[in-house]
Amino acid sequence: MRKSYREIFSTQYSAIKIITRPSVNEQRTSTMPKPSIPQGTRDFSAETVRKRNYIFSTIRNVFELYGFQPLETPAMENLETLMGKYGEEGDKLIFRILDSGNPFGKEFFEALKEFFRLRFEYVESIKTPINPYDVKLKDIDAEKISFISKELLDNSNSKHLTNFKNETSAKALRYDLTIPFARYVAMNHGQLTFPYKRYQMQPVWRADRPQKGRYREFYQCDADVVGSNSLLNEIELANIYATVFEKLEIDVEIKINSRKILSGLAEVCECPDKLTDITTAIDKYDKIGIEGVKKELVEKGLDDEQVRMITAQFLFISTHDITNEQRLIFLKQFFQNNSNGKKGIEEIEFVLNSFTTHNSQLTIDLTLARGLNYYTGIIFEVKAKNVAMGSIGGGGRYDDLTGLFGVPNIPGVGISFGVDRIYDVMEELKLFPEDIYIGTKVLFFNLGEEESKVAFNLMQQLRNNNIACELFHETAKFDKQFKYADKKNIPYAVILGNKELEEKTCNVKNLKTSEQISVPQDKLQEVAWLAL
Amino acid sequence: MRKSYREIFSTQYSAIKIITRPSVNEQRTSTMPKPSIPQGTRDFSAETVRKRNYIFSTIRNVFELYGFQPLETPAMENLETLMGKYGEEGDKLIFRILDSGNPFGKEFFEALKEFFRLRFEYVESIKTPINPYDVKLKDIDAEKISFISKELLDNSNSKHLTNFKNETSAKALRYDLTIPFARYVAMNHGQLTFPYKRYQMQPVWRADRPQKGRYREFYQCDADVVGSNSLLNEIELANIYATVFEKLEIDVEIKINSRKILSGLAEVCECPDKLTDITTAIDKYDKIGIEGVKKELVEKGLDDEQVRMITAQFLFISTHDITNEQRLIFLKQFFQNNSNGKKGIEEIEFVLNSFTTHNSQLTIDLTLARGLNYYTGIIFEVKAKNVAMGSIGGGGRYDDLTGLFGVPNIPGVGISFGVDRIYDVMEELKLFPEDIYIGTKVLFFNLGEEESKVAFNLMQQLRNNNIACELFHETAKFDKQFKYADKKNIPYAVILGNKELEEKTCNVKNLKTSEQISVPQDKLQEVAWLAL
Repeated sequence: MRKSYREIFSTQYSAIKIITRPSVNEQRTSTMPKPSIPQGTRDFSAETVRKRNYIFSTIRNVFELYGFQPLETPAMENLETLMGKYGEEGDKLIFRILDSGNPFGKEFFEALKEFFRLRFEYVESIKTPINPYDVKLKDIDAEKISFISKELLDNSNSKHLTNFKNETSAKALRYDLTIPFARYVAMNHGQLTFPYKRYQMQPVWRADRPQKGRYREFYQCDADVVGSNSLLNEIELANIYATVFEKLEIDVEIKINSRKILSGLAEVCECPDKLTDITTAIDKYDKIGIEGVKKELVEKGLDDEQVRMITAQFLFISTHDITNEQRLIFLKQFFQNNSNGKKGIEEIEFVLNSFTTHNSQLTIDLTLARGLNYYTGIIFEVKAKNVAMGSIGGGGRYDDLTGLFGVPNIPGVGISFGVDRIYDVMEELKLFPEDIYIGTKVLFFNLGEEESKVAFNLMQQLRNNNIACELFHETAKFDKQFKYADKKNIPYAVILGNKELEEKTCNVKNLKTSEQISVPQDKLQEVAWLAL
Repeated sequence: MRKSYREIFSTQYSAIKIITRPSVNEQRTSTMPKPSIPQGTRDFSAETVRKRNYIFSTIRNVFELYGFQPLETPAMENLETLMGKYGEEGDKLIFRILDSGNPFGKEFFEALKEFFRLRFEYVESIKTPINPYDVKLKDIDAEKISFISKELLDNSNSKHLTNFKNETSAKALRYDLTIPFARYVAMNHGQLTFPYKRYQMQPVWRADRPQKGRYREFYQCDADVVGSNSLLNEIELANIYATVFEKLEIDVEIKINSRKILSGLAEVCECPDKLTDITTAIDKYDKIGIEGVKKELVEKGLDDEQVRMITAQFLFISTHDITNEQRLIFLKQFFQNNSNGKKGIEEIEFVLNSFTTHNSQLTIDLTLARGLNYYTGIIFEVKAKNVAMGSIGGGGRYDDLTGLFGVPNIPGVGISFGVDRIYDVMEELKLFPEDIYIGTKVLFFNLGEEESKVAFNLMQQLRNNNIACELFHETAKFDKQFKYADKKNIPYAVILGNKELEEKTCNVKNLKTSEQISVPQDKLQEVAWLAL
């Protein structure tokens, strides 16, 4: 056992009496700040944990039914594993970790060195004759900086740079699950059995400005298959979406598209170099409508004929309320001379035809774009019906997971569940099962020492039958014990006074209906009273 | 859905062809460092996750059976919530978090400012004519740092303290579960129902030097009851220990002692001021033996009579292989004139008498000390028999959980499970259930497009019956598919070729025994073949 607060605390100060709080803490009481938690983070109380676990375990069970295996990676990754992977904006949102709470610690010095190295580089790169010492750093006076600069930089700039490169202890909190997964696969690809099917459900951290529905600590739930080009994986993943949301009783629309179709569209329009512009514009259709898309395409330099093809033909048919089959007929015609488009249609058709019958629909949505470069084949997005909420899931096929870590040619396909949004949808539509609120099932009343001894033994029998019980912690008035049961949402009470003690019975009361029956003590564990 | 790597990545670079890795990454390939994870952290692959989850879910189920409710707190706490709670050494092991990966970010400036402020303060406070720039940063020794820290923390009039207090964005990673729990109770005590029984199973982080069995990220599993002085809680917690370890099939000894007895001992020896010295010496008995304890007591200034009472009487009887009853008889005599000791005996006796019969033993161990100041009543420690391993659990009663956060008088009692050690014990004694290694139960062979379509539908039926299945991702030779099943530890194969397609059967093969039977396709979901 590692030392906890309890143990460490206790060895710090010498004690005279034991039932005394150490004086150092008493002194602090007066100036004590109100306890709080960091912005954008949350405590989850029992009810919320239960509801969240209901979502997690539903997803986990389905992942496992489909042959996915769990993986857990550490909360902290080497900084260099994460930096540069999420773009400039993303880099800024990565939480860096210092080794020690002591500002004089090693990590702090490393950060300091890095600070000056970057500053030096900055000065060099703009190639101005600025003296590094002239750069004003907010409130820190220049003299002090120049001292540090001298200390750290004077010996040899290159040496410090080298030191920094060799500095492997810089760490940061996981920003998503994809990069740690890629890092894991790159580290272990020799040992893994491919196709490697993993799922991962862990928190991630982002230094985003907190706002409604956006947290600095939140969970991601991902499933990926890597090392396989088979479309069977896409079919499986679409089925996972359908199964999970059926189990959660959320009515969803699963949208499907292919990056190859979008690529084909740019080719048909004879402007493959405008792929990103076209995709970005189409992606906004939901928000800006057909006129908005037109305007954006014109702004990006597309000519009338190109804009017409995209909006009047492609988008028109994409957004019209027609069946998948009708859409496919149109697409086949549209892409009759384009191999990328044809391939995309073929793949979508294959997935649609193999999609096992579910209540959920799989709908072709040609405006769906998602990752512009990362995804290369079929892409998915899930929206809940009957509720105003962004996507609650998304994913797709990619060509190269681990190239960033020096291991090329590992393609894959993956999906992700947005647990916080799923939670909100389920709250709004009241989809959580009623018994999720129940922790303890039975409260044994404590009506005296002799009574509670018998109650204790009966309680242990029920626990052996897997029924969660509590014995009220002290002898108290009925009122107090009923109140406790009520506050804790406990559905049953077992009441055993001295009369019952003699008769070897006990009273079982349903606390919602107030119905009550007498049960022989030796029959209690048969739990027939659960029908009460 | 929050943006993942996949989405963010894709918007960073404009694309020309879609099936191309962005060139910026290709450039990086050559100078790419080998991927690795931070020292002292671990990736958990499927088998390890399953084993760990087996331990977690066993503990969780028992906690719930005993009426404990889950709580989850954020990974990061405000720095001030943690600092000063774990002693000077502990403070150094707290991982601090900076808001941004960008060293020019706000948090970095704050840290830097703080650095200079502290340094300036240091120079001022020692009132020497030293030029600040002459102070070598790396040479600042621990004493001076602690002096500065004290200056800042203890002097409430100091404007620096105010600055420090207003610095709300300083964050750190959770170091244990007790302080976040105390912070939560202090924040929410108005809303909680007391006695509040919570359990918490989450990772904690410490910047300890990593070594065998000591990690920088590891889980703690705690259960506490706060707001109750009743000894029923101690009985419940002892039963939780017994139940959990019975379910895990670990043969354990649960040691029990009372801080009141140790306190009484010091009083009987007429040196209550030496309580800490006595307890510390006794606590080492296991390691240094009776002579070692004697030596240490003499060194601490105890006279011959005191040493004799402690070692020849108290310790002699404590460490002799006698029953709890015999030990209690001795203790009653030893403490006949001491109220603290008597109270301690009474409490232990009450717990022992009410301890439900279990295979596990509850043993009085008078050398058990644990937290010297934190605990005030009964204390517990659990050791596994038949294996050389430190304690795998511990806890006890304390008088004040939340005083540190300005909410006094919330007593409680709690226990903790050492999951990493429990894991090691179970590995060593081979106690994990055999089927824990099984993820996917059935591999459907892929022997062609038509065959796999039928296989796919059969597979979905089994999944509906809660059996985890996979269809091999592509048509391949038997050999390759058998190998995959073998590597993934899949126990059954369903093989369906064109002959079976015609006959509407399939072959089910037990891959361990190589037994094989033919099953009509419409009978497969009845799973009689599981007996194979």
